Amino acid sequence: MKFPESIVSLINDFKHLPGIGEKSAERFAYHIIDMDKEDVEHLAQSLLDVKNKIKFCPKCNFITEDDECYICSDKTRNNELLCVVEDVKSVVMFEKLNVYDGKYFVLNNLISPFDKIGPDETNIDDLINNITTNNIKEVILAIKPTIEGEATSMYIEKLLEEINKSTNKNIVISKIAHGIPLGVEMEYLDSLTIELAFKDRKKIS
Amino acid sequence: MKFPESIVSLINDFKHLPGIGEKSAERFAYHIIDMDKEDVEHLAQSLLDVKNKIKFCPKCNFITEDDECYICSDKTRNNELLCVVEDVKSVVMFEKLNVYDGKYFVLNNLISPFDKIGPDETNIDDLINNITTNNIKEVILAIKPTIEGEATSMYIEKLLEEINKSTNKNIVISKIAHGIPLGVEMEYLDSLTIELAFKDRKKIS
Repeated sequence: MKFPESIVSLINDFKHLPGIGEKSAERFAYHIIDMDKEDVEHLAQSLLDVKNKIKFCPKCNFITEDDECYICSDKTRNNELLCVVEDVKSVVMFEKLNVYDGKYFVLNNLISPFDKIGPDETNIDDLINNITTNNIKEVILAIKPTIEGEATSMYIEKLLEEINKSTNKNIVISKIAHGIPLGVEMEYLDSLTIELAFKDRKKIS
Repeated sequence: MKFPESIVSLINDFKHLPGIGEKSAERFAYHIIDMDKEDVEHLAQSLLDVKNKIKFCPKCNFITEDDECYICSDKTRNNELLCVVEDVKSVVMFEKLNVYDGKYFVLNNLISPFDKIGPDETNIDDLINNITTNNIKEVILAIKPTIEGEATSMYIEKLLEEINKSTNKNIVISKIAHGIPLGVEMEYLDSLTIELAFKDRKKIS
């Protein structure tokens, strides 16, 4: 079928978006035809703007349009707390919830023996450098508890313990709590979560 | 939170796509950051191309980049068959499946008393004009069997019956079969489908 080329091209482009297959890409494309020209132009410009303006903060790797991200340049935040996360999305989520007022460090990779990603393929060196030069008092590991996440957390933990020993520093290392989320039916939870909830149980009396 | 403006703008734009809420829009936006610059530029250009190049065929309302769509300009197709559909997507689906080789007519609206869309707010006049001037022998109604779809089908049927009477023509009016689709568990089907399947049952012996 000699389908209009511009539509075929757009459908193929939409399939690059995460979780978008043929059907959804087609649905988006037909919707674009019906959209106001102004709105489509705005979307096209936003795409180019993001690609041209967004950089990664040299201190923490969070996204920014400036030389430094708004979190790193905020003097009112707690400078002694550093939360280590695995992606930009985690920072966005924590910031939206307004549950934390320290600084962040975004890892670019998790250690993954299966994918041949060792510590050298990550930016953990930069993390350690950030911790020591900024005089961080507590490092909070907020990485998901998968095999890769746990391997990465353990590696960072070990490095920090060595630093504590060799420099007589006392950097606190903590991990966000894993366990049963609130308002969720127990039966729908995965076994790892339940296992962790038992392991990390708290004495209440 | 002082989130980079370009990302906020892109997330809002993505929310214009059908079925895309805040979470999916964010997911798309972060993915754009990680995509190759070339691919993002291609997507932006495809969006503009679709908006600038796609027109509706003056004969059948299907999409085209030319003066006439590829179906209307195809001399090898059956010129005496006209399939009436409610949207461009239906044409694409039928064409992909390669189950029909006649012409199409895409309605711009279905008659809907609830939404105050009467026959005058549709392009049914153009449809009738198409049928009479092109000497169509059979009109196949392929509109979904909702209240609006049935009202529209019945209205077209009535008009064609009147034309048959007043001009002594004998245009055949047919409707694609509704019923139980193949390979589907009966229990998941809606009651209207099952009702239609009983109503339109075929004698087999």
